Order: sequence, then structure tokens, then C-alpha cells
Amino acid sequence: MIVASTSTVHGSAYLEYLLPALENFFRDVKTITFIPYARPGGITHDRYTEIAAKGLASLGKKVVGLHTFDDPVEGLNNAEAVFTGGGNTFLLVHALYKTGVMPVLRERVFDGLPYLGSSAGSNITGLSMQTTNDMPIIYPPSFKTLGALPFNINPHYLDPVKGSTHMGETRETRIKEFHQLNAIPVVGLREGSWLEVKGEVITLGGTLTARVFLQGKEPFEIETGSELHLE
Amino acid sequence: MIVASTSTVHGSAYLEYLLPALENFFRDVKTITFIPYARPGGITHDRYTEIAAKGLASLGKKVVGLHTFDDPVEGLNNAEAVFTGGGNTFLLVHALYKTGVMPVLRERVFDGLPYLGSSAGSNITGLSMQTTNDMPIIYPPSFKTLGALPFNINPHYLDPVKGSTHMGETRETRIKEFHQLNAIPVVGLREGSWLEVKGEVITLGGTLTARVFLQGKEPFEIETGSELHLE
Repeated sequence: MIVASTSTVHGSAYLEYLLPALENFFRDVKTITFIPYARPGGITHDRYTEIAAKGLASLGKKVVGLHTFDDPVEGLNNAEAVFTGGGNTFLLVHALYKTGVMPVLRERVFDGLPYLGSSAGSNITGLSMQTTNDMPIIYPPSFKTLGALPFNINPHYLDPVKGSTHMGETRETRIKEFHQLNAIPVVGLREGSWLEVKGEVITLGGTLTARVFLQGKEPFEIETGSELHLE
Repeated sequence: MIVASTSTVHGSAYLEYLLPALENFFRDVKTITFIPYARPGGITHDRYTEIAAKGLASLGKKVVGLHTFDDPVEGLNNAEAVFTGGGNTFLLVHALYKTGVMPVLRERVFDGLPYLGSSAGSNITGLSMQTTNDMPIIYPPSFKTLGALPFNINPHYLDPVKGSTHMGETRETRIKEFHQLNAIPVVGLREGSWLEVKGEVITLGGTLTARVFLQGKEPFEIETGSELHLE
């Protein structure tokens, strides 16, 4: 898996910063199945799939939207590789359960299906979607997600803004509140960072450090290029 | 009701900016029942009730935590006035359903019980909690809330930051995504603003304008001191 904080870094095109890593990652794949359910800004599934196809165009792969299959579960079962785009995590998780895709995607990812996620698509690789930053615009049947990582992701991780006068909670405070009720570790991925997951080995990619939150402990940073060991 | 964006504005003490309005609002009340379930930063119910009591001390009222009653529903039924503090809206709504307080609070508010909410405590006065900014740290049985307002509240409303390089969604984008799926109007209350609700009349308090979002329309501002008419 490649689990990216964001699809786009400021000042560059959609997926552009990830293309060198993706070229290698998708090298044995002809077709990438795109899951457009998170619908950022409410755009259509078709439009979102077009954007994904354009972003991946330089790789020379065919990109097919999962929504174009009469039976999305069958579409997924025949997929060579999957990319789940960002948007609203509640909407994404709701759709994955409603279509019956969630358990099948879990099975296929555990069987080694190449999986790329960005933002909401990365959120769902963790044990639950409970460290999303998104608004609960729809009520999903569960907050449980793929559990393909032994922790949760907080994408678009933001450090506290020094001198801010805003009284809303910082990201770190929100994750601390999560840890009052849940023991699941959380990895805060800053924009431009991603995790590369090969079997049990998880490596931090990109140029930045990532912030790790364990229940009842002080958060700490991990260096890019290093393997994650959370125990 | 007084429905406040935040308990605290930058550079002033807890509830301080609201005290002039609260003095009048609670003038006929001896005891205020405090609902501490949202537990900001995971503090205890006792500690949170102490903070609320201190914030309200200058009003000369007794403040009692709803958690101190063996039967919170009975505690609520005997309440003269209620203040629900901020924190995590998912946790608050989960607790209100688990304790059976939600339907009783709805009934009592509709019967005219003086109700003060801040942040999460304001969120729940709307039709649903779906325009909260909080992290889904616990799975509530429903997103439906008191419905004591014919719209939803987005507390701590933040305008887009000009020149920001962060790629996460702005507040306005999130509310737009909400409106892709829901017709409920949303009032974005900036920190320092509150709504004063007397029967059918809803007036904006504080020094700032508030931003109103209607499905499929351009958002607009309403002036402080003016009545809300959303149709």
C-alpha cells in the first residue's frame, strides 16, 4: 500500500509529488480501479474519476471508476490495483458499507492487492475512521475501516499554529481526546508524507517527519525513510 | 436559549464575554444544572463542573453537575435552567442518548427551560450534529439532536485563510459538502457571537456578523442585532 496524507501538495498538480513512487508501485499493473465515493466538494463520480485518470496519465495505465460497474463487488474482485481518492471520509465509509465493498476490499488488500489511498482513502486503511478531520455529513453504519494498518491515520496533520487566537481545539488536542476513549495509536501524516507498506514493513516517505501519538504517552516524531515501530 | 459559538474568546476568562447577557437571561433562576458530558480534553465531569461554576460565579447562582444525580433524567426534570458546555460533540451526543437525557432535554427546552449552550452544547440545539468540527472519537446511536432551532449550527466558524498552503478543506467547503446531501440550513457562528432565542424570534448577539449557508445558494452574512429569517 501507499498511504498518502494528501493527493496534492501546494503549488503542484494532482498526485504530481507521488508519481515517482507510484511508477514503481504500479509497474506490474495495466488497469487501476478508482474508488470515487468520497466525492470532494460533492463532484460527480465520473468527474472525480476523470481527475484521477488525468493525475495518473503519465504512468500510462487505464483508470476505471468502481461506480461504472453494475456490481461494484465484482468490479473490485477483478481489480488489479485500487486507488481510493480523498474527499469526505463519512461519505466514503457509508458508500463502502452500502455497496458491500468494505469487507471485500479488506480481504483483497490483505491478499496483497496494490492499494493507493490519499486523505480519506488513507484514513480507511487504519483500524477506524475516528481520526478523520471531516464533517459527519452522513451517518455510516460503523466507524470501523479496513484495519490494514495496526493504527489510525490522521491525514493533513497540522501542527498547532503559534500565536493563534482561535479557541477551537488543535489537532493534537483532538487526538488526545480520542485517546481518552481509545487505545489505538495514531500517526499524524503531514501533507507531502506517505507510508509505504510492504507486508509487515511500514516506511515513511516524503521529506517531512511524521508525528506518532500513543495513548498516555508524549507524542514523538519519526524520521522520513525510517521504519515505523509503534510498540 | 442562548446559543454561543464558544465559551471563551481569546484573551478573556471562561464565559466572561457572555456574562452581561447571562445576567439577564438567568435572572429568575437560583440553580443552573450543568451538563459536562462533552469533557474537553478528556477532563473529568467534576473538574469541568468546577470550571463552569467558577465562570458563572459572578452571577451568584448555584451550579450542579448533571452527572452528580443517580438518575440524570430526574435531575434534568427538576432543573430550573441548563448549561451544556463544549468539548467533543460525538461524546456529548453519545452520553445524552446513553443516559436517556436527549428526549427529555428536547421536551424541556421546547417547554421553555432556559438553556445556555457553548460550542458542542450549541451544536446540539440544531437539527443534527452533522456540522460539528469535532473528531468522531465515539460512535453515537444517531446524529440527530434537539431540533430546537430550524437549522444547524457550525460553531467556531472560521473564514478561509487567505494565502494558506494547507490542502485540507476550508470550513465553507465542508458545509458545501454537507449541503450536497442535506437541505438543512447552517449558521456559521464566529467566536464571540451567539444567538438569543425567545420563542420563534432568533437574534444574533455579539459584535460580529454570522454566515448563513442555504442549500444551492450563495452564502450570505447577517448583521449583529438583527433577527434571523432563513427562508
